[in-house]
Amino acid sequence: MLIVQKYGGTSVGNLERIEAVANRVIQSVKEGNKLVVVVSAMSGVTNELIEYANFFSKEPKANDLDMLLSSGERVTSALLSIALNEKGFKAISFSGRKAGIITNSVFTKAKIKYIDPSAIENELNNGKIVIVAGFQGVNEKGEVTTLGRGGSDLSAVALAGALNADLCEIYTDVDGVYTTDPRIEPKAKKLDRISYEEMLELASLGAKVLQNRSVELAKKLNVKLVTRNSFNDNEGTMIIQENGMEQALVSGIAMDKNQARIILRNIQDKPGIAAEIFSSIAKENINVDMIIQNVGIDGTTNLGFTVPENELELTKKAMKEILDSNIIIETDSAVVKVSIVGVGMKSHSGVASMAFKALANEGINIEMISTSEIKISMIVQEKYGELAVRALHEVYGLDK
Amino acid sequence: MLIVQKYGGTSVGNLERIEAVANRVIQSVKEGNKLVVVVSAMSGVTNELIEYANFFSKEPKANDLDMLLSSGERVTSALLSIALNEKGFKAISFSGRKAGIITNSVFTKAKIKYIDPSAIENELNNGKIVIVAGFQGVNEKGEVTTLGRGGSDLSAVALAGALNADLCEIYTDVDGVYTTDPRIEPKAKKLDRISYEEMLELASLGAKVLQNRSVELAKKLNVKLVTRNSFNDNEGTMIIQENGMEQALVSGIAMDKNQARIILRNIQDKPGIAAEIFSSIAKENINVDMIIQNVGIDGTTNLGFTVPENELELTKKAMKEILDSNIIIETDSAVVKVSIVGVGMKSHSGVASMAFKALANEGINIEMISTSEIKISMIVQEKYGELAVRALHEVYGLDK
Repeated sequence: MLIVQKYGGTSVGNLERIEAVANRVIQSVKEGNKLVVVVSAMSGVTNELIEYANFFSKEPKANDLDMLLSSGERVTSALLSIALNEKGFKAISFSGRKAGIITNSVFTKAKIKYIDPSAIENELNNGKIVIVAGFQGVNEKGEVTTLGRGGSDLSAVALAGALNADLCEIYTDVDGVYTTDPRIEPKAKKLDRISYEEMLELASLGAKVLQNRSVELAKKLNVKLVTRNSFNDNEGTMIIQENGMEQALVSGIAMDKNQARIILRNIQDKPGIAAEIFSSIAKENINVDMIIQNVGIDGTTNLGFTVPENELELTKKAMKEILDSNIIIETDSAVVKVSIVGVGMKSHSGVASMAFKALANEGINIEMISTSEIKISMIVQEKYGELAVRALHEVYGLDK
Repeated sequence: MLIVQKYGGTSVGNLERIEAVANRVIQSVKEGNKLVVVVSAMSGVTNELIEYANFFSKEPKANDLDMLLSSGERVTSALLSIALNEKGFKAISFSGRKAGIITNSVFTKAKIKYIDPSAIENELNNGKIVIVAGFQGVNEKGEVTTLGRGGSDLSAVALAGALNADLCEIYTDVDGVYTTDPRIEPKAKKLDRISYEEMLELASLGAKVLQNRSVELAKKLNVKLVTRNSFNDNEGTMIIQENGMEQALVSGIAMDKNQARIILRNIQDKPGIAAEIFSSIAKENINVDMIIQNVGIDGTTNLGFTVPENELELTKKAMKEILDSNIIIETDSAVVKVSIVGVGMKSHSGVASMAFKALANEGINIEMISTSEIKISMIVQEKYGELAVRALHEVYGLDK
């Protein structure tokens, strides 16, 4: 098999860990696999470099920052290659450029435009293990770019797609994707399999194993993903197309604390007002999530919606310019979004009512609800968040 | 003026030092100069990376090592660019590749093949200060290479040549080139000017301000060099063509402790024997320096020569295979080479006899002598080395 492995910052957090990763790579090679290995910077390195940059400037120029930050992954890739060569396995370290990763020119959060995998393929054909510095590429002018948060995962998935790899293994310091956060519900179970769609919902809802960008790309390129723990030999979670999967009713429960609810009261109930409000917010690149508009009774109406809590101030500022002074703005940051995710919901009714009953039994008031084909999200007061997660985890039998 | 500045490891040794370098660069820009700035890794970084590599391997593969080590200079160049931009001066950081430095493929000690300065020229024309990561380039396959010891100086000189710069300023932590090592002779004076030829002799003889590779390249490309101290505003030493210079009789006194003397006794005095011995040594890339062959009296002869002390064992091993067992090998590591360097010697007689008298007055025995147009070297016992330097420094009036 041709496998792309990716090791995150804690997995290569010190020299001993890099040695352990080398042994894991060798194990896979001995099993007959060809390997491309994408590595992150050793944990702490990127933050240290950012601190260096901030010594000089609160807002360093993005192209300088990319030159700076890309060095961390280069160090790890060279060290892993040295370790493998010393152990008698032929390896070579590649920068993002040498790996053929061509991006646009949006420094610090570049998007991959295309990949020219020929240099990697040459070395694979020479019997080499190719170690690639993750998180980075170059634009068409040859300037170093970085891919933003989760960038190394993205490097791995994109390379797996371009190389037509059989598998892309993402190594972190957790065993895989869980039915819910084990810190909230100790009975949470690791999932053996999950669909791209479910993973996307879970990732956006706070299960931080993989960023959405990587899952979306894997889905698009049909890359078979596995997330595994580099600190043990457990099986991990496979993330694949839903067809052919045994469909669980509910796969997991997620909680997102970074939520704030906004209610606008006393809005003139005329066409276009909501569009005007939301486009003023969209201009600031703020992601509005759940929206509820009450039917008006006296020519006015109420509009409720949620935004990320850390963008609440920016949202209020954006709206201030277009709202007239009669409108009352109420905000509440002490809310969380609890979500139920499962492909099985598509073909089963009654999933939502089970949730509502479960929360009612615990005396938890649901303040907002939104549903999609594979997801039900509910806004509840933050103090009830963990209790809600445990109640939902139990009612769908996820601990079994 | 178009100036290439180069700052060594101690000059950019920490964040405060990089800030100081930024201010120095700005000073030069304010004086109306266009600047290209070549930087080394922050002091200690390269050694730390080598330690990392040695954790995995005593002999890491050279291409991996270059990927590893090149990251240090990239960090410094990005940080300096960030500092300059923050202070309102437009700057951009370049890797060796982006600077157009193309080398051969001898990893860890690559030679520059050519430079394509067009990317730098573009940015200079855009009014930018271009910061270049020193010590590195790429081979024609696009693989990262490093230039070996003194590599950042070499980057600076080569860029100054390719850009046809008016001046190349090499910043270190000393004021310039001295008449001799001030730790040996406190009366040593900083030289305002010195010729390439003298600098070459002094560098090879232990005055470590600039490596010979850089001086040779500067001479070849006719790059006007200045070495200056980045920690103060002193004038530095200008290294230029000798014509047009006021010619000092003697410019400096150098001492090289890394010397061992070998005497071979009882050699059959037949043609070709010396050639055979020296070619066996040359095969090991050992640099034989002074050679003295005594006239034989009974059909045998004695041959004396010096090699670097740290290659003495290798020299003995190389000779062992070709010397017959009658030959007696005597070695002495407790010797030093003291040298007088000066362009003025060419046109003055009596320089050598002044040296011999000065040492005789101190009771120092001269064991071997060699001379060239601008240099007189003498081997003396190591214990007399510093005394010899001081006596010579005085006799040529270098303290005045």
